[in-house]
Amino acid sequence: MDASLGQISTLLKENDNFYILTHQYPDGDTLGSGFALCRALQKIGKKSKVINNSAIPSKYTFLRDGVREEGFKPGFVISVDVADESLLGPNLKEYVGKVDVCIDHHKINKDFAKYKYVDCTAAATTQIIYDLLQKMELKIDKLIANSIYTGLATDTGCFKYQNTTSRTHIIAARMLDLGADFAAINKTMFDLKTKKQFIAERYIADSMDFYLEGKLAIIYVTLDILEKSGVDDSVIDGIAGMPKQIAGVLIGATFRQKKEEEFKISVRTEPGVDASLLCRHFGGGGHASAAGCVLKGSLEKVKMSFVDYVKEFLTKLNL
Amino acid sequence: MDASLGQISTLLKENDNFYILTHQYPDGDTLGSGFALCRALQKIGKKSKVINNSAIPSKYTFLRDGVREEGFKPGFVISVDVADESLLGPNLKEYVGKVDVCIDHHKINKDFAKYKYVDCTAAATTQIIYDLLQKMELKIDKLIANSIYTGLATDTGCFKYQNTTSRTHIIAARMLDLGADFAAINKTMFDLKTKKQFIAERYIADSMDFYLEGKLAIIYVTLDILEKSGVDDSVIDGIAGMPKQIAGVLIGATFRQKKEEEFKISVRTEPGVDASLLCRHFGGGGHASAAGCVLKGSLEKVKMSFVDYVKEFLTKLNL
Repeated sequence: MDASLGQISTLLKENDNFYILTHQYPDGDTLGSGFALCRALQKIGKKSKVINNSAIPSKYTFLRDGVREEGFKPGFVISVDVADESLLGPNLKEYVGKVDVCIDHHKINKDFAKYKYVDCTAAATTQIIYDLLQKMELKIDKLIANSIYTGLATDTGCFKYQNTTSRTHIIAARMLDLGADFAAINKTMFDLKTKKQFIAERYIADSMDFYLEGKLAIIYVTLDILEKSGVDDSVIDGIAGMPKQIAGVLIGATFRQKKEEEFKISVRTEPGVDASLLCRHFGGGGHASAAGCVLKGSLEKVKMSFVDYVKEFLTKLNL
Repeated sequence: MDASLGQISTLLKENDNFYILTHQYPDGDTLGSGFALCRALQKIGKKSKVINNSAIPSKYTFLRDGVREEGFKPGFVISVDVADESLLGPNLKEYVGKVDVCIDHHKINKDFAKYKYVDCTAAATTQIIYDLLQKMELKIDKLIANSIYTGLATDTGCFKYQNTTSRTHIIAARMLDLGADFAAINKTMFDLKTKKQFIAERYIADSMDFYLEGKLAIIYVTLDILEKSGVDDSVIDGIAGMPKQIAGVLIGATFRQKKEEEFKISVRTEPGVDASLLCRHFGGGGHASAAGCVLKGSLEKVKMSFVDYVKEFLTKLNL
């Protein structure tokens, strides 16, 4: 059921032994939310830990700074930036049906937790975590500011995209005043890459192809590209925006080959084309301008079914 | 001589027939500053126009929206975001020695105007224009907000770089509240490219080479690359940050071939390496983390003298 931020605040103050769950294939927002909340709770003497489906990608490990690791059994389960329990990932299955509080900003949030606070106007879930910490009257230190800032920056493409609001900028301003290492964070999140990553990105750029008179562009992160450039899929990041950079492209898609016949598809769209709706057709979801889904089958088959549906989808929109 | 913002405000109120000069190779900040101020002055019944060394690159022409074009003789000359008269460009030579008010944020600003207001803590000159319009009690409408926002975003890499301050974010928040088309602006400034530009960027990425154990990386925008990808130099934008994205690079340089034997060099550096100081050796200048200079000679010669000096420069810094 829906709860107010005040109610969530009371629940957190009255409980202890928090497990904070993030979504799988974690990003800066789910991890930033998790570690910001975790550190804030630890600082008032609560036991708290962030639980992930798998290891945290190295670019995000700095978010763990200042968070104590301790063993304890869960007394209260919180999910952050998780729209649906299925997104917790296979290794967190044991928590399905056991989430006490869900804090999220996805429009498509499923009503899976005992209590939920979903603010779709928040550009990032860390924006809500900021509000929650204010409500709880908890002090935000530099490390918590780093985590909150990371969520704001990563979910908005560094304040570039339409989901940014004046409030996002106001909170960012406060995080800067609290000493957030924003320039270093942004460099790590958006710019820094190894030579191998740089080479991989060149292969990926070369893979771009166009459909439907240039309205759809697709890039491919295949197992072959990863192998010949010697990098891991987890380090190929922030490329989902690449296809939509080309003038005229309404839908940009990134096909990440997870197994020989399994592709994780990230979709980015122009205003007026709902990425979340498009991905829902394939059992996925997300936001209006950025969403994702998983398709199984050979690359050719998957591509054909995706392109076919996009054609139908755009036709319905008269685009 | 130095003037306060209050004095500048009075000067603008008491004078008329403004020529607002931008720097050559104009960017979003000099043009955003120029058009924001121009429109604000026109709105209080003053004659005002923005004067550039050459045509405005097409990606910036939207900044002219809502600005009336009218013919009149200059009564009062203002320069915006111009650190030195030599940067006005060859076609604005007639204004050298005739600038009444200089509004700028460059540390290396030369004392060339009758009155100057230089705020080096401002991330962008449009940040100062915002302060000035507040001081003059002029209303900021949506179009002025677009121009102010454009300067903020372009000079900070969309709030990514160290020069961003909490005040930059606060002013950005106000521009969003005033209706600035920030997402469309950011797309135009940072992302959108034609297929030809995309291809040119791939050639440029391929050109990257490394010196001094990977501490210096250089990319080349040669006349040859421009020709074979069919694009104009003016549309190859925002690539100066590319070399410094590679882990370990302290100095990233972009060599833009202007003529067979003339190269405009853009330098981007890590904290602790002063790009402005480095470029001053070659007669250029700029900011601590982003600066430029022009070198003449064959590519090989120019490259050698640049690499040699960078080596000396880094040695002096024990890097």
